[in-house]
Amino acid sequence: MSAATTLRSLDDALRERDLTAASSILLPLAPQEAAALLEQLAPRRRSIGFRLLAKEQALAVFDDLDADTQAVLIHELGTTEVAAAFDILEPEDRAALLDELPASVAKQLIRDLSPEERELTAVVLGFPRGSVGRRMSPEFIHAFADDTAATVLDRVRARGHEVQSIYIVPVVDRSRRLLGVVSLRDLLLADPDAPVGPIAKPPIYAHADDEAEPTAERCVDRGISAMPVVDAEKRLVGILTLDDAIEIVDSARDVDEARAGAREPLRESYLYASIFAITRSRVVWLFVLAVSAILTVNVLEIFEGTLEQKVALALFIPLLTGIGGNTGSQAATTVTRALAVGEVAPRDAFRVAGKEIRVGLTMGAALGVVGFGVAWLAYEFEIGAVIGLTIVSVCTMAATVGGLMPLVAKTIRVDPAVFSTPFISTFCDATGLIIYFMIAKAVLGI
Amino acid sequence: MSAATTLRSLDDALRERDLTAASSILLPLAPQEAAALLEQLAPRRRSIGFRLLAKEQALAVFDDLDADTQAVLIHELGTTEVAAAFDILEPEDRAALLDELPASVAKQLIRDLSPEERELTAVVLGFPRGSVGRRMSPEFIHAFADDTAATVLDRVRARGHEVQSIYIVPVVDRSRRLLGVVSLRDLLLADPDAPVGPIAKPPIYAHADDEAEPTAERCVDRGISAMPVVDAEKRLVGILTLDDAIEIVDSARDVDEARAGAREPLRESYLYASIFAITRSRVVWLFVLAVSAILTVNVLEIFEGTLEQKVALALFIPLLTGIGGNTGSQAATTVTRALAVGEVAPRDAFRVAGKEIRVGLTMGAALGVVGFGVAWLAYEFEIGAVIGLTIVSVCTMAATVGGLMPLVAKTIRVDPAVFSTPFISTFCDATGLIIYFMIAKAVLGI
Repeated sequence: MSAATTLRSLDDALRERDLTAASSILLPLAPQEAAALLEQLAPRRRSIGFRLLAKEQALAVFDDLDADTQAVLIHELGTTEVAAAFDILEPEDRAALLDELPASVAKQLIRDLSPEERELTAVVLGFPRGSVGRRMSPEFIHAFADDTAATVLDRVRARGHEVQSIYIVPVVDRSRRLLGVVSLRDLLLADPDAPVGPIAKPPIYAHADDEAEPTAERCVDRGISAMPVVDAEKRLVGILTLDDAIEIVDSARDVDEARAGAREPLRESYLYASIFAITRSRVVWLFVLAVSAILTVNVLEIFEGTLEQKVALALFIPLLTGIGGNTGSQAATTVTRALAVGEVAPRDAFRVAGKEIRVGLTMGAALGVVGFGVAWLAYEFEIGAVIGLTIVSVCTMAATVGGLMPLVAKTIRVDPAVFSTPFISTFCDATGLIIYFMIAKAVLGI
Repeated sequence: MSAATTLRSLDDALRERDLTAASSILLPLAPQEAAALLEQLAPRRRSIGFRLLAKEQALAVFDDLDADTQAVLIHELGTTEVAAAFDILEPEDRAALLDELPASVAKQLIRDLSPEERELTAVVLGFPRGSVGRRMSPEFIHAFADDTAATVLDRVRARGHEVQSIYIVPVVDRSRRLLGVVSLRDLLLADPDAPVGPIAKPPIYAHADDEAEPTAERCVDRGISAMPVVDAEKRLVGILTLDDAIEIVDSARDVDEARAGAREPLRESYLYASIFAITRSRVVWLFVLAVSAILTVNVLEIFEGTLEQKVALALFIPLLTGIGGNTGSQAATTVTRALAVGEVAPRDAFRVAGKEIRVGLTMGAALGVVGFGVAWLAYEFEIGAVIGLTIVSVCTMAATVGGLMPLVAKTIRVDPAVFSTPFISTFCDATGLIIYFMIAKAVLGI
């Protein structure tokens, strides 16, 4: 039953063009399972696998794929083959897919839609990229406060096929302003003739213009199955479902995690990705790092004279750059995460700096004492003093820079995760070395 | 409406002991929102805030807190004050909380339970820590294939108050073996007199002994609202709800992410955590790193003679350790993630090694050519050769070690994330330097 084993057999079957074996694996699967398997395959084998699905199953599986996988599949299969699949997508999933497609392909797909579907898609596309409005479902069931539980249940029965979320029903007033939410569970358990107003709960909702990522984090974190979305006048305009929220959070975290590890995220499953795909996901970052690391070579050249007089100083370079790089990336990943969940914002720069300076000083003091002792015992008192002082300064500098960098990135609208580990550690290497040699020159008088 | 603003006001109110202001923020909130706010506060202020809640709300909020936050709260409030809250917890949440508590406190809490609740808790506690069985809900509604939709809906109405998941109903045969699942949506939309067997879908299920983390990833990834859990005979024993799955995935990812950034996860919100708490979450790791970085000082000492003859070699140390450390952590974070989602297992060690050697060689060749050129232009041909060869070797070594280390960690039952970035980069620093000076000695003949 292991998912890894199934994936392996499917990949082997497709690699050997054993379509009967591949079909016998894919056809009995639930659409979500089949979609999850296909997503992990290399693009070529994925499209072969997709063609093996029965018509109905193919539509459901396409629906369950990530937007970027859908885009690659459209590229492999051609627009006409997927027109039917495109038609059954939810408006918000369609908008996400359109964002991934070249404009010409997107236009053709929109042209082929029914007028009604085209209009719903236009509602979602009307909100800016990255906003909640862009990811919400514009089709939903709502209730008025004086509707009875039975009426609302009937409405769920009648329209349950069209809308995506039926487990949370928003309750609104006559001008569509959001009053509360009632869960399907409460509707079922309530007296059928009772009005829903009194059983409605205070809503956890979002504004359509809010940023999608922190809102989705909130939805997932609270485990609520759907979040009403309102406009500036608090009028209900859509619903963010837990499904979509999970997708937003997951893809954002994958990207953050990969970038914190100086990679781009891999689209395929690791074992089935080509050497080329893996190398590509890593080499760009490594080049950026290597080019900036050449800076440190230049920095050191300035101090070549100092080094020649005191070769022992060279021995501590990896220790000091290690401490600086790690302190910086500790601070950067903490603040990047806090930004992602909306705990801090760029306007908190002073508070973050104040915190990180104190944390850096505390850690620097603790490590500096150890460094001082080790260097003193191994060499001489002056070298110990240089190392101790450098560690305190480097920790403070690295923590502060590391903490502020994600806020700067956010302000200039760059993904904060990009500035995390790789960038910070290289920056702290170069700056740390300058501090080191300046302290060394001052203390040793060379 | 910003959550960050609400959090700030609440923290300020509690800090200034302005309990009226704090109450006016907390009392109107939905339990999930209040729980999320309290989780982000420092423990002392959190318990003051918790005491402000009305009895009913306090129970619901306690229910929504993470197990570790609950444990801290019990510590602050005392066992008797929380006995009522403990009683209303779901059996699986109770098991998770018991894992966090000292044995004496746990025993007392269990003693105070009703016999029925104690029995349900015992079912969950019977499965090993970290298994799906430990996190599933042992209370659920099930249906037989020949039950009509109306019968099942009545059962949902009758027992909906007791069980956690009503949106997915497992369908079983007479010996309780799992046949399929039917969603509440389908039940509502179906002909009331039709049997549920034909509308049931193939189930996405888990075994109670499966590891909780990959199973939860699967549940969240597929966006299914509840996953039936079966024993070795495929008999239904419980249900893993999406709520619980999200909690498992989130806390596992928080830990992974923090450890990849050489930290322990922070329990409180960043801005409201004390300098001490932040320092503590980072300093242990930094000490481990510093102690291992002292190793690199020792490694370099062996080559002090070589360095004295060719000081230029020292200039490239940060560049080379940077490339080694980053290549290693790229590989390590990729494989750690693949392990977490179940894409690879320790038995794939040879395939992983084969992949990483090739990826490392490819990247090393690309970067090595650049390094060779830069060093040749800046110094001399021989130095260029040393740098180029070292980059190729270090990349290959670092990618292979980085890729294998998480598999080793998994095999010896250590969290693979612990071995990621911090450990790998220090290991690669030391090994990379040895390679560097050995190549330098050979090429330069010193």
